[in-house]
Amino acid sequence: MGPLSLPKQDRSRATRQRLLEAAVACLAERGWGGSTVSVVAERAGVSRGAAQHHFRTREELFTAAVEYVAEQRSAAVRGLLPQVQLITGPARTHMAVGQLVDLCTGPLFRAALHLWVAASDDDALRTPVTELEARVGREVHRMAVELLGADERRPGVRETVQGFLDMCRGLGLAHLLTDDTARRERVVRHWTAVLSNLL
Amino acid sequence: MGPLSLPKQDRSRATRQRLLEAAVACLAERGWGGSTVSVVAERAGVSRGAAQHHFRTREELFTAAVEYVAEQRSAAVRGLLPQVQLITGPARTHMAVGQLVDLCTGPLFRAALHLWVAASDDDALRTPVTELEARVGREVHRMAVELLGADERRPGVRETVQGFLDMCRGLGLAHLLTDDTARRERVVRHWTAVLSNLL
Repeated sequence: MGPLSLPKQDRSRATRQRLLEAAVACLAERGWGGSTVSVVAERAGVSRGAAQHHFRTREELFTAAVEYVAEQRSAAVRGLLPQVQLITGPARTHMAVGQLVDLCTGPLFRAALHLWVAASDDDALRTPVTELEARVGREVHRMAVELLGADERRPGVRETVQGFLDMCRGLGLAHLLTDDTARRERVVRHWTAVLSNLL
Repeated sequence: MGPLSLPKQDRSRATRQRLLEAAVACLAERGWGGSTVSVVAERAGVSRGAAQHHFRTREELFTAAVEYVAEQRSAAVRGLLPQVQLITGPARTHMAVGQLVDLCTGPLFRAALHLWVAASDDDALRTPVTELEARVGREVHRMAVELLGADERRPGVRETVQGFLDMCRGLGLAHLLTDDTARRERVVRHWTAVLSNLL
């Protein structure tokens, strides 16, 4: 492919990204039931035909969307690592915990939650979403270990990080229907101190 | 009302209970999308008309069902309290944690999760489910405090229990698509020791 084809490729990639971002926003706001390819195409300002050129099925669009946005968020958090690594002790844990809790209370977690729950009783979604969840889960775990500066060779540290990430997901769930910010901040402040002692 | 009317009342209450239990099983297995009054009535062996006599709307049936089963589970766990209260130290924490984690990995949690997620983008469900979640959340917290023998007058104990319950909900979420039992058992063993030290 010569350089003349690049602008078209760029346009195609930009369209794809707009569709993926619109799909996650749609899933977070309307849930799986209200999220169709047409709704996402309209939101992204793309024709339905163009959307179907990029994603053959609804399952493909939404699974790709959650993966894409998870990778973007992950890259953004990884971008903070050089700064975070300069800090040690409780201040480091505080900063790391803040980032990890934020990951579970924003629109990405909300969209992923809708996708997970829909996949639990939808045969076409179950396999791709289970694979996606495993990949995203491993990536979040690796990121947590690096952010916290945790040494997983020490016994119990792996389980400490895993249990803490389960807590973050539980905090995300508690934020689904009501604004749980005040309670969450107290819980997070307390458990940051606990985690800092454990690591 | 004289004693002659009792058998009819009993039959009505038995029908209501069958509907509530069938509704939770249905939500856990099929999700909100697959859970209608007709499906539940058929599963309970009750006519659609009889089901509608007990519950005017789909929202009323499923909200009442999750509340009823949560109360039943809560009563069952409370029934264990006299035995649990005879135990102290790490063995007590171990037993209490086992009960609380089990609450979040069974069909009741699965049903509740479907209802919460459906309520997040359904106006007719949002208010009753938000109220239900608050009531159930308070009851689970009280039960956790009693089971663990935690003294909430001590600073930090309340946040320890809250964060641990968030962890239980996160563990329940991780169990939604795949059998997470092996990982969960390692995490729970480790955090039982942590919790025992904290309390």
